[in-house]
Order: sequence, then structure tokens, then C-alpha cells
Amino acid sequence: MAIIHSSSCSTSRSYCYHSNKIYNGHGYPMLTLQEQTAADELPLSYPPFISSIKKRRLKLKEVACQGYPVGWYGEKRKSTNRMVKVICYYLDGTINLYMRPIEGITIIVLLDQMTIASYIDRLIVPVPKANGTDYMGSKRQRSSHESNSIKIVQPDGPSFTLDNGSTVRWGDWKFHVAYDMRAGIIISLASMFDADKREFRSVMYRGFVSEVFVPYMDLTEEWYYRAYFDAGEFGFGLCAVELEPSKDCPENAKFIDGYFISQDGTPGKMPNVICIFERYAGDIMWRHTEDAIPGKKIRKVRPEVSLVVRMVSTVGNYDYITDYEFKQSGTIKVMVGLTGLLEVRGSIYTHNDQIKEEVYGTLIAENTLGAYHDHFFTYHLDLDVDGHENSFVKNNLKTRRMINKSSPRKSYWTVVSETAETESVAKIQLGSSRGAFEMVVVNPNKKTEVGNEIGYCLIPGGSATSPLLSDNDYPQIRGGFTKYNVWVTPYNKSEKWAGGLYTDQSHGDDTLAIWSLRDREIKNKDIVLWYTFGVHHVPKQEDFPIMPTLSTSFELKPTNFFQHNPVL
Amino acid sequence: MAIIHSSSCSTSRSYCYHSNKIYNGHGYPMLTLQEQTAADELPLSYPPFISSIKKRRLKLKEVACQGYPVGWYGEKRKSTNRMVKVICYYLDGTINLYMRPIEGITIIVLLDQMTIASYIDRLIVPVPKANGTDYMGSKRQRSSHESNSIKIVQPDGPSFTLDNGSTVRWGDWKFHVAYDMRAGIIISLASMFDADKREFRSVMYRGFVSEVFVPYMDLTEEWYYRAYFDAGEFGFGLCAVELEPSKDCPENAKFIDGYFISQDGTPGKMPNVICIFERYAGDIMWRHTEDAIPGKKIRKVRPEVSLVVRMVSTVGNYDYITDYEFKQSGTIKVMVGLTGLLEVRGSIYTHNDQIKEEVYGTLIAENTLGAYHDHFFTYHLDLDVDGHENSFVKNNLKTRRMINKSSPRKSYWTVVSETAETESVAKIQLGSSRGAFEMVVVNPNKKTEVGNEIGYCLIPGGSATSPLLSDNDYPQIRGGFTKYNVWVTPYNKSEKWAGGLYTDQSHGDDTLAIWSLRDREIKNKDIVLWYTFGVHHVPKQEDFPIMPTLSTSFELKPTNFFQHNPVL
Repeated sequence: MAIIHSSSCSTSRSYCYHSNKIYNGHGYPMLTLQEQTAADELPLSYPPFISSIKKRRLKLKEVACQGYPVGWYGEKRKSTNRMVKVICYYLDGTINLYMRPIEGITIIVLLDQMTIASYIDRLIVPVPKANGTDYMGSKRQRSSHESNSIKIVQPDGPSFTLDNGSTVRWGDWKFHVAYDMRAGIIISLASMFDADKREFRSVMYRGFVSEVFVPYMDLTEEWYYRAYFDAGEFGFGLCAVELEPSKDCPENAKFIDGYFISQDGTPGKMPNVICIFERYAGDIMWRHTEDAIPGKKIRKVRPEVSLVVRMVSTVGNYDYITDYEFKQSGTIKVMVGLTGLLEVRGSIYTHNDQIKEEVYGTLIAENTLGAYHDHFFTYHLDLDVDGHENSFVKNNLKTRRMINKSSPRKSYWTVVSETAETESVAKIQLGSSRGAFEMVVVNPNKKTEVGNEIGYCLIPGGSATSPLLSDNDYPQIRGGFTKYNVWVTPYNKSEKWAGGLYTDQSHGDDTLAIWSLRDREIKNKDIVLWYTFGVHHVPKQEDFPIMPTLSTSFELKPTNFFQHNPVL
Repeated sequence: MAIIHSSSCSTSRSYCYHSNKIYNGHGYPMLTLQEQTAADELPLSYPPFISSIKKRRLKLKEVACQGYPVGWYGEKRKSTNRMVKVICYYLDGTINLYMRPIEGITIIVLLDQMTIASYIDRLIVPVPKANGTDYMGSKRQRSSHESNSIKIVQPDGPSFTLDNGSTVRWGDWKFHVAYDMRAGIIISLASMFDADKREFRSVMYRGFVSEVFVPYMDLTEEWYYRAYFDAGEFGFGLCAVELEPSKDCPENAKFIDGYFISQDGTPGKMPNVICIFERYAGDIMWRHTEDAIPGKKIRKVRPEVSLVVRMVSTVGNYDYITDYEFKQSGTIKVMVGLTGLLEVRGSIYTHNDQIKEEVYGTLIAENTLGAYHDHFFTYHLDLDVDGHENSFVKNNLKTRRMINKSSPRKSYWTVVSETAETESVAKIQLGSSRGAFEMVVVNPNKKTEVGNEIGYCLIPGGSATSPLLSDNDYPQIRGGFTKYNVWVTPYNKSEKWAGGLYTDQSHGDDTLAIWSLRDREIKNKDIVLWYTFGVHHVPKQEDFPIMPTLSTSFELKPTNFFQHNPVL
């Protein structure tokens, strides 16, 4: 039960519950690093597997394996075992094992017993060749135009402070950064100093990645179950990696260590797991050139400098870069970058012309199918806009037609605001209709001097993706919280993980989608905004052998929160 | 006719037509800087205006005026006059004239005659106060936490070359940069060196801002006509401003001058009108940490360095930052940032509680209404993906339901491609339905080694905005090309300006929407992709007195263009 406790505690600084009650529902806590490593080694000494490798004329010492959660596919009975399916890869001339899957074998490992419970060698498929898969060396010829070095320099050092290793002060911002095994970075108690009011005003009580849902679209025997919950099953924080100075983060970054709880309850250190740095990308915060005043030439330009908090989580093949960027204007920009290696299926095909069946992916190299898949990132955003009690307002941009001839114009648009009374009216599927609107969390108890509601707006990014799986498909039942991009719930201390507290082998009966069925009141309450964005990934040859970072982001932007532009 | 000629020539390097034919259609060429300045000064010596100023108890020497295009509001007869409406502002204690409009007066100036043809003083409205409008000084108290300096340093200098002042070579990229009075930056002949093929392969023949349509939503007498075409009426390039080193562009930037044609045909120099710089924002191009290989610790991180080409165009109150960012991965990211000053209406109101009528905007300060408006940016993207003949393909992501029990899964999605045969099937309104798809310009005559079509994908940004005006409203008839976010047309040398060659006072009979009615064939042709994105702007108090930059972007991304990730 150590893991369950640690998981529940680590993200709740203000309370931490311990009980002797045995949990009897569906699902298990996160996999530990230790049991994953142990499971990965089992096949290498398992005679049927050794014989499978021999049959394929491969060398056992060049094989490396990885365990993956098994999911849930409609079994009615409660699972009585924690388990993984172990997938093996072939090195032999590359370090890019993920580009060389050994297909056709299904190995089930029981984790508590640490034994192979089931082994099936169904078919032999060519292992894709090693040639062209390496990303370490510079074996390929490049054009002669290499770049000169470019560096970010702060001669007087960074201008943020980090107190007690966790409280950041930068510009008008003050917030707390924590590392969590499940969520990764947790930002809490974010507030901004208001120079007019001479006080800090709260923006966000707590914000973090609640779940990362990654369903694959390949329905072959060895692939159908691959629908991962990278936070709830693997631990988005537990998979965080040591950041490389001057590479993962620029020269002016400071680093923070993290601590995790091992399987036996002892603490483990994760050095340099989070970095914080000031970003100057050559951009402009605001500017104006004025030439309308005779005899005067006016130009004022203020460069944009922001503060970034970054973690990289490498969940097996994928590397997720997660940034929280704080802007002086009050905006928090949340970014996810996807890089690392695709999950590919070995295939008999070497050219598209040979393919006459559904292969569930793109042929990205000979014998290599990049499987279609999605990434959904669900953020828990417990905003406290200038206080605890907030409301969720949808500002609809409505076309008004001029029916009389009072104006030479025939139409205009105006803003019609709706405040959501309960959860059911606050959920939103973005991109499902042409209507334009803004989504604002407001404090209905406070107004600006001219009487606007004080708020923070959610600005969706380019990838406001809705799921394409059918509602009754098992991965989608478990990932039902991705059905809407936006949900608003009243704060409830037990509702942190959109996929449920125990996500591994979950049945989808403890998700945000289920909690929200109660249709609770959310007006003028302590509310939580849940935002899901993502990408449908159709792999391309450019993603081989390693993916250029695919970035997507959203913003939380002050909306009549300040009396005026806070950066003058 | 000099202006007409210059405008037609300046954007067509390969041909330049001169004729003695008089144009008899609707619309006029762009306003010149000289006639705008002359028109702006007319009211200051016009007795009725002087008396209006006196009536308002204002000081004439503190008044500054600006001319704006008059648009077209259904008049059937051909306009026989080039004209502007001149709007005046009040300084007296601020340089931020746009925050102090003198409302209630309509002045029509005939440009060719340079006389006031009509003058109406309809009503007196309080001029908003100067207090709080200045953005030059640091009069406001800030928190004590000021930032230390941060600089971008390239000790060996920039790594790009600029030949003949216009041909850029950087990394694997080669392209041409030009300044144009109407479009601003024109990128042409962009190609990438393919290290495998040892040759440059073409990506884009020519790309530029074709139009910027900015309709306001205020239907009061002095405002209804405000629906601007910032490229066709003002000249997006003509309004470009001198960039400030180390502020508008970072320390490592190089600058290019531009040349424009004055009203009398003489050339004028615009110093430092475009800058080019390498960007390193602390981001990661690709990375992976591998810990699945026993005994090995593998980590490889490649920082992201890109090349930015930037111009800033200050069209009256607004400053538009336009960036073309070239990435080593082959992606071209096109960004527009909006900053500068809002167009506000003076009002009697000092608090929202007083407002019982439609005011067409947000009360952003006392007596100051930030008018609702849109910005639509329409790009002309003449891609030549690995050759001239291209097709436009829509890759639809379609859900497949499993009706038999062949898989424990009940659904998946796959890719179903459609090639557009003619213009009518290629137009796309983004965000109008839940369906997911990719938009790819492919070269159907070339394939990768494994048989994928060679392509470049259009990745829309977050602001894929559709117009909210009714189709029959006059500004929308003239801006009909914004109705769809994507259009594809066969290349036609006369189809460059989405709003028509002569946009000032146009009737909308020469727009992309009209040309495309011919429904021409576009399959395996030299095609042009037109992409419109934009923002519906509901002003906020944070936009006062100067707007923090609001950025929006899209990408052109290689899609099976290369055999593999081009940056290894």
C-alpha cells in the first residue's frame, strides 16, 4: 500500500490521508520502476522466449524488453493480478531499439509474483533493419552550412529567486514549484503583484497534468491493447529524466532535484528533474511607432522576456517536454512538446504498392509501420481568480442582423455572456461548431473600477482535438474524460486524476466523466477547470528515426483582471 | 497611373505589365503616404472644424488627425472620387492620441482635389482623459523585482549569408526575401538542400500576406464604415516601420532596407525595414533518453535554432509583427503578432452599470470603449512541392467501428485521402465540424522510396476564425475571401490580391471568392494555397493603454517530403 499512499500524498500538500481500509474497486496504482525493470528481464531467461529468438535467427544478447500496461477489454470480473505485457526489441547495430520491434510474441508478466503467466509466439515478421535508425552519431552527410554557436547570456545572473527550493519569485509573479511522481510539475499558489493595489492577487491555486491518454489504432493481436495512461499507469513524474544543461534547458537555467518513493518505500533522488529559466526569444512584448504627431518621431518597443519551468518525461519511447511559461503580462502559457521515438510495428512490407490490407499506420521506412495514435493531455487547473469563489463564463460572439435601415451596415457581432450554473452546461467540445466564444473564469464578487468582471481566459491552442474512438470502445470508456475539451467541476479533494485514482486496469468508473454526471453547482464556487488538448498523430517519414518536436500549447490570460496593461 | 503601375510591378519580379488602358472598374489603388499626410492636415485650417474644436473647449494645437478609407456601402454608381474620412484625436498631455478620439465629427476629404467635400459635426462626446494613457515613460510604480539583462550572443557572428541583399542561405535553406509596398515581406524560391539527394528541392515559389481585413463592429454614424483592408488600402509594406536594433529584433539580427515609390514616382528609402536573425529560445529540436538498454545510459538532445525574417507594419494605431520562421526540420512557421493601440470610441460612460444600450465594445477605461473588431490575415502561398505540378489532398481521419468480434477493441481511426479535383471541393471552413483531417499539398508525380506521396502539410494555428458578419453585409462582400480559411486555385499571374487589385472602395467583384467561382481544375497543376486565419478581438482592460502582443501562427510542415528526419 506504500505506493498508493505516496501517490495520494505527494500531490496534496495541505492534507495527506492514510487509512487501513483495503481498496476493493477496479484498477491498480502506478507501476514502479523496480518492478518494470524486473519484468523486462524475465523473457531473457525464459526458455520459450529464447527459442523464439533462435527461431528468428536473432542474438539473445541484442534483445531488450519493455513492459506495458494491459488495459481493460470488457472482462466483467475484477482483475486479481497486477500485470504487464512485455514487448521485446532488437538492438544489433543500433541504440534505437524502438525502430526494431520483434513482432508476433505476447508475454504476460504477473508483477506481484514476478513470473511469466502466459506466452504466445503467434507469427514471425521481419525485424526492420538497423541501418538509418541511429540518432546518436552524425553518420549522415549534412550540407556544408553548419550553424555558428548561439547562446543566451545573463551577465548579472538570472533575475528570479528560488526560496526553499520551491518558491519562485520573478517580476510580478510568485508561485510554488513541486515535483510529483504522478503529475510531474505541480504549479501552485501562483499570484501576481498588482502595482496599483500594492498586493499579490491570486491566479491559480494549483495546476498540473492530470492524465496523458495515448490510444493506438492498430488492432492486430499484439497491438490492440495499447492505449496508455502515461500519468496514471507509468507516472508522468516517475518517468521524468535528468535534464542536460545547455541542451535540454539553456545556459541560464537553474535546476531542481526531485525525490520519488521506491517500491520498498525508500526515497530516491532524481537530479536536475526540473529547470527554470528566463526566456528571450527575440520577441516583442508590446510596441508602437507613432508618426501622426507632426514634428515628433515616437517609437517604444519592449522586448518579451518570460520565465519557463520545464520538465521532460520519457515514457518509454516518447519524450514529452512540458513547459509552464509565465509572462510579465500575466499570461501563463502551457506547452507540451512531443519528441523521441515512434512506436512502430515490424511489417513484411517494403513499399506502399504491396499493401492491400489495413495496416493501421504509415510505412515510414522499409518493414516499419508508424502506427496511428493520439495523445490527449488533460490539465487540472484549479484557478483562484482573485479569490476562491469563481464562476465559469462563456462569452458568445453573436451575429446581429440589422433588419431596419438604421445603418448602412447589415450586421455586426456582439458579446452575449452565459454563466454556467452546473457542470453539465460547462462542458465544451471545441471545434464542433462554427460559433465563436471566449471561456473565462471570473470572480463574480469583484469588479474593476469601470465595472468589468475580473477574470482569466482559457485560450485553446491549435490542437483542440476530440476523440475519434467510439464511446463504447474500452480505451474510450477509460479515457471518457477526453470527450470534452473543457469541464468545470466544484473543487473536491479526491478529484485530482481525470482517469481515476487507480488507472492501471481501470474500468472507467472513477473518471472525471463519471464524477461530473452529478451535475453539481459551479456558480460562485471554488471551481476547477479541466482542459484537454492533443494531437491525432499520423506518422510521417520525417518522424523516423527520431521525431522533430511537435509542440502544442494553450494559455491562461488575464481578462479584465488588471485595470490596465500590467507592463508599462 | 504611376501608383497603379508601381503596385502591379513591385510584386512581380518575372513580369511587369505597363499599358495605356484606363481601368474603368470599381476601386482605387492604395493611398499614398503623401496624400494621407496632406489630408490629415486639412481640418486644422478648416474654419468649421476650428469652431467644432472651440465648441468642445479643446486646444487646436493639441489635435492630430488621420485619414481612413471610406469603404463601399451599396452605392450602385461608380465612385468618381478617391477619398478618405478624417478622424481627429486629442493629445494634450499624452502621446497616445488613439486613446483620445474626438467623436461626433465626420470629415470627407477628396484626395485628388485635396479638399474637404463634406463636414458634419453631429454630437459632442467627452474626450477620454489623458491620465493613464502614456506608454512612453515609466510613470507607474512597478514591483521591486526588475529583470536582469538577457542577451542573445553569437561570438562567431550569424551563420546565415545574405547575397545581393536578398538571397538568404542558412543551414539547408535557401530563399529570397523582398520588400513590397503592398505585401510587406515576400518570400520566394524557398528550397531545402536534401543531403541524401545532394540537391536543393523546391518548397515554395512565393509566399506573402495578400490581405489583412479588419472590420469593426460599431454601427454608430462615425464608425459603421470602419472595415479596413490594411494591405490593399494602406499598403502593408508601405506602413512598415524602421526596426529598432536590440528591441524589435535581437542583438544578432541583420537588417535590410526597403524602397518604395512616392506619389510623384520618385523612390524613397525605408531603412531597416526587415530583419533576419537566428532564434534560440531555449527549446529542443529533438531529444531522447534511453534507459532500456542494460548497462547503457543514452541521452541525446539537439537544441532548436531557427531563422526568423521579420517586418513590423504600423497601420495607424495597430502594429503588426510578421515573422517567417524557417526551421532546420523543414517547417516554415508563419506568425503574426498584434500590438500597438486599440481603436477606441469616446463615450459618456464611466462605469458599466450606466450602460443600457448596445455600445459595440468593452468599457476599458472611463469614457473609453474598445470597439469589437476582427483581424483576418490572408496568405498567398504558392507552394511548389518538389516541382511545379502539385495537388491538394485532404487526409480524413475516419472512425471505423468493429462490427464483428475479431478484436477486443470496438473501434479505431484510419486515414482516407481525397484529392481535390477542382476549386470548389478544396475550400475549407475550419472548426465547422468535429471531423479531423490533414491538409497536404503533394507532388503526385514523385514518391519517396517506400512509396509515400511527397508533400507539405498546412498546420493551422489556434485562431482559425470564420467571419461572423452576414454574407450580404458590404464589408463582408468585399472581404468574401475570408469565408473559407482555405482555398486552392490554379496559378494565375493576375490573382495575387485576395481583395482585388484595386481594393479601396472596391465592390467585392474582384476577390478570390469571385475568381474561384469558375471552379477550375487544380489537380496536378501549379496551384496556390490561400490560408486565412485571424482573431475576433473583444478588447480587455489589459489592452489599455497599449496592447500586449497577441500572437497567432500557422505552419507549413514537410510531410513525407524527406526520406527521414532531415536533422540528424
